Amino acid sequence: MREGERAAKRDAVLRTAARFFNQRGYHATSLDDVAAALNVTKPTIYHYFANKDEILYECTRRGLDEIAAIARSTAGQNGTAADRLRQMLTAYALIMLDDFGICVSRTQDHLLSPESRRGFRALKREIDLLVRQVIAEGVADGSLAVPDVRMAAFTAGVALNGLGTWFRPDGPVGAEETARLTVAVLMNGMCPPPRTSTSTEETTE
Amino acid sequence: MREGERAAKRDAVLRTAARFFNQRGYHATSLDDVAAALNVTKPTIYHYFANKDEILYECTRRGLDEIAAIARSTAGQNGTAADRLRQMLTAYALIMLDDFGICVSRTQDHLLSPESRRGFRALKREIDLLVRQVIAEGVADGSLAVPDVRMAAFTAGVALNGLGTWFRPDGPVGAEETARLTVAVLMNGMCPPPRTSTSTEETTE
Repeated sequence: MREGERAAKRDAVLRTAARFFNQRGYHATSLDDVAAALNVTKPTIYHYFANKDEILYECTRRGLDEIAAIARSTAGQNGTAADRLRQMLTAYALIMLDDFGICVSRTQDHLLSPESRRGFRALKREIDLLVRQVIAEGVADGSLAVPDVRMAAFTAGVALNGLGTWFRPDGPVGAEETARLTVAVLMNGMCPPPRTSTSTEETTE
Repeated sequence: MREGERAAKRDAVLRTAARFFNQRGYHATSLDDVAAALNVTKPTIYHYFANKDEILYECTRRGLDEIAAIARSTAGQNGTAADRLRQMLTAYALIMLDDFGICVSRTQDHLLSPESRRGFRALKREIDLLVRQVIAEGVADGSLAVPDVRMAAFTAGVALNGLGTWFRPDGPVGAEETARLTVAVLMNGMCPPPRTSTSTEETTE
């Protein structure tokens, strides 16, 4: 089998498995379900992956790798750090709304084997550090103002990681708009900036 | 047994179970572990609860009930809606950092039986609607500015619900400070308000 075909088959197994995990949960998904949905036999799946743990880990790794790649690439761009952060978080949010991102959302550490867990945590940590770094740069260049860089990065990460827990692809708001609106809360908060308030009453915030 | 004693024993089972679920995961926790930690027999536990599903549901219900109660009480207070929202979210965050709140964080719908799941979702929905309502009031009284009330409430809920996925009680930042800093990001965002910028450079945000 050619390399491209092999990669496409692996990919199909992962995407189908991710959808089952997301809908039913990891424990309730059997590789029989995944094989049946793909119209292949279970040994075919074992040709690509050692076991269900490896499949779950690979699903999350796809999502996390994509986020890490986008975070690395936006980190190196021009503009204020606030611009870079907004771009980074918007791209991050969009990935979290796709199958593999939703799988990241719903995967808790203890579902994974110790080895897979180490990889999962390392990737999450890398992303957290990239977000932290751009927030720290924003504090330095004056384009961002946060009382605590580490906590701001955690809050942003958690808000984006949780998108997959409630987002419905068939819901009233699409993925792009969901990403934009979520990032707007993280960037601008819910209190209006004092100068631009158009209210006729004084606000106390 | 007196009613108070009965309630205290139920409570001890729930809190101990919540800690096991939080540390090991629901599937990896057996009621034998919980009984052993409490120095009681498993039939004692079955005297209070029908099964592990009921225990998990009751653990999450404790956390969610507390949040709903605090949300209802802050909703009725004086001040701007922004003040009420800040209070509500801070109290919500603190509950999410306690055993039952962490259990809420880590419990995914599919872990629960269909009946428990309905109760779990109904409580979450009530909390979401209370948060939404105060945000809508803030938009009306000018103390809040959000492009989409529903999405702002989701973002706040997800950020707070996720606290228990990373917070370590023995970490460098305590629960109160964690709650305060998380709510600060949600209320004020990460971009500085233009008027209060102390940077000597122009910011583009």
